[in-house]
Amino acid sequence: MPKISSKGKNMPASPIRKLVPFAEAAVKKGKKVYYLNIGQPDIKTPDNVMEKMRNIDLKVVEYSHSAGFETYRKGLAEYYRGVDINIDHTHVVVTTGGSEALLFGFMSCFDEGDEVIIPEPFYANYNGFSVGAGVKVVPVQSKIEDGFALPPMEEFEKLITPKTRGILICNPGNPSGYLYSKEELQKLRDIVLKHDLYLFADEVYREFCYDQAEHFSVMNLKGLEQNAIMIDSVSKRYSMCGARIGALVTKNTEVLDTVLKFAQARLSPPTFGQIASEEALNTPQSYFDEVIEEYVERRDLMIEGLNAIEGVICPKPKGAFYAIAQLPVDDADAFCQWILEDFDYEGQTVMMAPASGFYSNGEQGRNQVRLAYVLNKDDLVKAIEVLTAALNVYPGRVAVSNQEESFA
Amino acid sequence: MPKISSKGKNMPASPIRKLVPFAEAAVKKGKKVYYLNIGQPDIKTPDNVMEKMRNIDLKVVEYSHSAGFETYRKGLAEYYRGVDINIDHTHVVVTTGGSEALLFGFMSCFDEGDEVIIPEPFYANYNGFSVGAGVKVVPVQSKIEDGFALPPMEEFEKLITPKTRGILICNPGNPSGYLYSKEELQKLRDIVLKHDLYLFADEVYREFCYDQAEHFSVMNLKGLEQNAIMIDSVSKRYSMCGARIGALVTKNTEVLDTVLKFAQARLSPPTFGQIASEEALNTPQSYFDEVIEEYVERRDLMIEGLNAIEGVICPKPKGAFYAIAQLPVDDADAFCQWILEDFDYEGQTVMMAPASGFYSNGEQGRNQVRLAYVLNKDDLVKAIEVLTAALNVYPGRVAVSNQEESFA
Repeated sequence: MPKISSKGKNMPASPIRKLVPFAEAAVKKGKKVYYLNIGQPDIKTPDNVMEKMRNIDLKVVEYSHSAGFETYRKGLAEYYRGVDINIDHTHVVVTTGGSEALLFGFMSCFDEGDEVIIPEPFYANYNGFSVGAGVKVVPVQSKIEDGFALPPMEEFEKLITPKTRGILICNPGNPSGYLYSKEELQKLRDIVLKHDLYLFADEVYREFCYDQAEHFSVMNLKGLEQNAIMIDSVSKRYSMCGARIGALVTKNTEVLDTVLKFAQARLSPPTFGQIASEEALNTPQSYFDEVIEEYVERRDLMIEGLNAIEGVICPKPKGAFYAIAQLPVDDADAFCQWILEDFDYEGQTVMMAPASGFYSNGEQGRNQVRLAYVLNKDDLVKAIEVLTAALNVYPGRVAVSNQEESFA
Repeated sequence: MPKISSKGKNMPASPIRKLVPFAEAAVKKGKKVYYLNIGQPDIKTPDNVMEKMRNIDLKVVEYSHSAGFETYRKGLAEYYRGVDINIDHTHVVVTTGGSEALLFGFMSCFDEGDEVIIPEPFYANYNGFSVGAGVKVVPVQSKIEDGFALPPMEEFEKLITPKTRGILICNPGNPSGYLYSKEELQKLRDIVLKHDLYLFADEVYREFCYDQAEHFSVMNLKGLEQNAIMIDSVSKRYSMCGARIGALVTKNTEVLDTVLKFAQARLSPPTFGQIASEEALNTPQSYFDEVIEEYVERRDLMIEGLNAIEGVICPKPKGAFYAIAQLPVDDADAFCQWILEDFDYEGQTVMMAPASGFYSNGEQGRNQVRLAYVLNKDDLVKAIEVLTAALNVYPGRVAVSNQEESFA
C-alpha cells in the first residue's frame, strides 16, 4: 500500500471539530448541547441576499474570471473605500473563502522551509495552510494576563532568522478577540520594513469592533504598500460562511500577478457565492447596527458570567466574537471531553474548543478554552450555568492559588 | 521589497487564458470571435437545478460538514452505483471543484520532490496543482498518430525512479478526448501495483463517451482499492462549471482521513453549489441523451471539417469535448496569436488554445492546437471556414510533406 505524504501526516486535524464525536454521543444520550466551539453565527444572512438568490436567472452556471466578477471586484473596492481603505478593484483577487486567499498568498510569497511569525494563540487553521504551503510557523507568545496584546518587538526580534519571510496577524483576533491599536500596527510596520518581510493581516472580523474602538487596517500603514497583504471574507460580515467567498488584497502587483496564476489553475471562485456576495454589498447599515448591538450584549453577558466563576479568568475582547478563558483545570482538552461525555446539568452540557489547538505547541494554553458567543442570550446564560456547575464537580479541578502561580 | 516565492515564479500562467488580451483586442476592432479555446460549454444547466435555487429557503448560509453535506454524499454514492462504481458515501470527500480534489489528493499522497507520471498532452492545470503541491511532473508521450492512446508500459518503466509515487490520467482525456479501454487500464493497474504507486484518475468527463464506447473507472480495477483515487466534478456533467463542486473518491481510508484534514482547514465546500449539485442528481436521463446527441453532431462536424483542410490532422476522439489538431504551421502559439491579431474572414476570427501549454515542455506539440467543441453547430461551421481561410494565407505555413516527416 502506498504511503501517506509527510505533509499529510503533519497536517493537524481541526481542534474545533475534533470533539464532534463526543458531542454527537451526548446528543444521542438525550443531552441538550450548547455549541460554543465554532464560529458559525446564528445571525441571519441579510434578507436582500436571499431574495437575490431566489431571483437568480442564469441559463448556464458558468466559470467566472479567475480573479472574480469584475463588477463584484469594483463593488468590493467601493466597500473598502467606504471603510477608509483606499484601493481599486485591480488590487483585489476574489478567492474561495479567506482560507484560499491565505493559501495562495502563502504559496506566492513563501517557499518550503520559509518561516512566518504568528502571535499565538492563533486561528488553528493557520497551521493547516502553513503545512499545505510547506511553511514553518514560528509562534510569538501573547499572554492572557496582557489581554493578548501584541508581544513586545524584542520578542519578535529574537525569533527572526535568515529564513523569516513574513508575519501574520489576525485583527481583530480569532481566538482572542483582541483588537490591535494603530500604535501596535506601526510597530509591526517598522519591524517588517527593517527585515523586508511580508505582513499578512487577516481582517475578516473588521466589522466586529466594540466599545467605539476603531479598526485600523494594514492597508493604511504608510510605506508598507509592497509588504502588506490583507485577507478578507464575507463569511462573518454577512453571516454567510457557506458562500465561500473571500479576497486577497494588496498593492504589490507582483504578488497579485502570482496569486492570479494560482487562481487560474483552480479556474474561478464559486459563481453562486459571488452573486450572493455582490448583492451583500447592498446590505443596509441597520443590519450591521443590530448585529453589533446583539454581539456586544452577548459578549458582556458571557464575559461577566465567566469571570464570576471562581478561578476563571477571561479578558474582555474588543472585537470578533470569541474569547479565551483560563479555567481552573489541569487539562482543558480532558475537561472539554469530560463535560460532553460524563457530565450534564439538568440534561444540558456545553461544547467548547480546547485552546491547545490554537497554539503551535499543544502544551501552551493547556488550561484555556476558546468560546464563541454565537448563541442567543438565553442559551448563553444557560451555557454559563452548565459550565459553573461542571467546574464545581470536575475531578481535574486545580486550586486557584496554583493556577495563579502560572502567571508568574 | 520582499521576494516572490520560487513556487510562485515557477507557477505557469494558464495557456488557455493567455491569449485573452488578443481576443479582447479583436473584439474591440469589431471582429466576431469564435471561442474554441475553453471548456465552458454553452449547454444549459438543468432546469430543475435553477428551479431549486429559486426556491432556496435558508435563513443562514452556514458552513457544511468539511466533507460535504451527508445527504449529498449519500446521493452521490447512489449516482456512482448507478454507473457501476460500487462505493458508499464514506468513500467520498466533496471538494471545491475537481481542482481542489486534485490539490488535496496530491498534498495527501506526495511530498516535495516526489514524481508523478502523466501521459501528455495533459490538462494544463495539472502543472499548476503540481507546483502548488511541490510535486515534479514526469511526462510520458502519447502520440497524435496513435490517436493519443496509452503509451506502452516500457515507456512508463523507463521513467520510474525511486522518487516516483504516482501516475495521473484523465479519462476520457482533456485535451485529447481519448477514452482509455479496460485493457489499457488493466496495464496501468499492473504497473501501479508492481511499483506500489497511487493511480489518480480524473474522470470528470465520464458521461461524455460516444459511439457506444463505455467508460471504465479506475474504481473498478480489482486489487487496486488502496491505490486508486478518482477525481470528479459536476462542472461538465451538468454544465455548471461555476458551482465549483467536485469530489475525491477512494476506498483507501488513510488517504480519506488525510484529505479530510486538508478539507477541515478550508472549513467546507460551497453551500450554494452543494444545494445545486444535490438537486442535479435528479436530472432526467433525457437531459443527458440530448446533450450527448448534440456533442456527437458537433464532434463529427468539427473533426470532418478539420481533416478536410489540407495539412490538418485530427484524430476522432471518443469522449469529452476536445480535440487536438496538428496544423501545417511552424508555431501554433504564433499562429493562434496571429489569427486573432492580424486576420479575419468576413469580419470573423477564431480563438484556439495552443497545445504547447498541454505539454510539460513547450517544444512538444509546437504545431498542435486544442479545440473545444462547445459552440453550436452553425458557429462551428463558421469557425472551420475561418480556420481554413487563415491557413491558406498564413505566412508561417509549412509544406505538408515536411510536416508528415515529423511523424517518422
